[in-house]
Amino acid sequence: VVPRFFAPTASTTGSIVELPEDEAAHLVRVLRIRNGATVRAFNGRGQEWRAAVHEIGRRRVSLELVEDVKAAPEPGVRIVLSVSLLKGDKMDEVVRDAVMLGASAIRPVLSRRVDGPGTRTVGEARRTRWQRIAVSSAKQCGRAVVPDVLPASTLSELLKDRSGRRRLALMEPESATGARRIADVPRSDEVELVVGPEGGWAADEGEQLAATCQLVTMGSQTLRADAVPLIAITALRVAWDDF
Amino acid sequence: VVPRFFAPTASTTGSIVELPEDEAAHLVRVLRIRNGATVRAFNGRGQEWRAAVHEIGRRRVSLELVEDVKAAPEPGVRIVLSVSLLKGDKMDEVVRDAVMLGASAIRPVLSRRVDGPGTRTVGEARRTRWQRIAVSSAKQCGRAVVPDVLPASTLSELLKDRSGRRRLALMEPESATGARRIADVPRSDEVELVVGPEGGWAADEGEQLAATCQLVTMGSQTLRADAVPLIAITALRVAWDDF
Repeated sequence: VVPRFFAPTASTTGSIVELPEDEAAHLVRVLRIRNGATVRAFNGRGQEWRAAVHEIGRRRVSLELVEDVKAAPEPGVRIVLSVSLLKGDKMDEVVRDAVMLGASAIRPVLSRRVDGPGTRTVGEARRTRWQRIAVSSAKQCGRAVVPDVLPASTLSELLKDRSGRRRLALMEPESATGARRIADVPRSDEVELVVGPEGGWAADEGEQLAATCQLVTMGSQTLRADAVPLIAITALRVAWDDF
Repeated sequence: VVPRFFAPTASTTGSIVELPEDEAAHLVRVLRIRNGATVRAFNGRGQEWRAAVHEIGRRRVSLELVEDVKAAPEPGVRIVLSVSLLKGDKMDEVVRDAVMLGASAIRPVLSRRVDGPGTRTVGEARRTRWQRIAVSSAKQCGRAVVPDVLPASTLSELLKDRSGRRRLALMEPESATGARRIADVPRSDEVELVVGPEGGWAADEGEQLAATCQLVTMGSQTLRADAVPLIAITALRVAWDDF
């Protein structure tokens, strides 16, 4: 397998591009790749190239974009995952898996139900960390698109944003009055999937969601909170004939 | 949420049943439940009861099966997951997730591609460990059925067993000549899903599979080996209108 690197400034075949610092470190220090070697470069916006290592400096690596190659196809539907913060490092796994399964963006949601350190705000450092995880997951799974990790917002802020895309809110089976099975949701080209915290939404949050979103449920079992986004994205893509 | 306990000998409403040793320990030492408390008991074969703690002894706990309750519905299709051993503890997660998503049995497969300690044989202690994880996952997700963790077998042994159920073998996108998208596989009431090791099957294993199974693929991205079973079971159940 040819190693892939994220080169956000890449756009024109034949040009020389510099890698971001952590990509350069990965190339030189982890993979110990030498000058002249053939690699892949992708720009995170869907383009990919066969590239040659052009120059390796102290902390800089540049690549020559030799030939554009066909990038892995993106899903036909855009799924924005808005997901309540999970405890500990579980959010890392959610970001990694959502990128692998083709999410188009990921938005952390602050829910009153989640408690503990780091669940009330999301600083820029954490968002940067998740954005790096998104890059690393795109490298591994073969995507040429790196989804944005959006700034965190509260549920109310989220629901106030009337961007026009349809919202689906995942509910626990028992709090699912008026909910549809996820497999029965009609296809949209773009959708926002809102996933609640461990233990479900608070009562008033549930009401807000019911008033503004299509409520959906999956299966009849209680699912692990950190696996729910992965299961839900898979279910939507299969139901919409996009997997 | 009322705590649930696995009582494999339970069968008749009104009777007294003893819990297995580790279930008794969970009730007394972890959850500190007292005599007379109301719990749930399920027998692992699909029956569930409201139960009362009848007697707590030194190492024994008995429950009275007060009233039978409706168990969570099982999937309409039986999916046997035959999955190549993964490194480290990842098999634990695969068992846990497969139970949560409704697999009817799990069979570890020994593949020549996997290397490292504990990938050549599976002793009875490990099988017992996975069976315990299956119990624990059933308790948490609300299933009243505990899937069997079957003895490990090599791929050849597996394919020799002509039990009559249809076999689907998941292939990497690039080695997928003759494969169908998983969403296009016609529904069966029972199916065996064969999942390969990290890095895919060896060439001759691929040939054996092509000769005896329907080959299937999922999406166009490279998926993490430990997430593949969960994604595949979800995809099949959604495609078969069973989720």
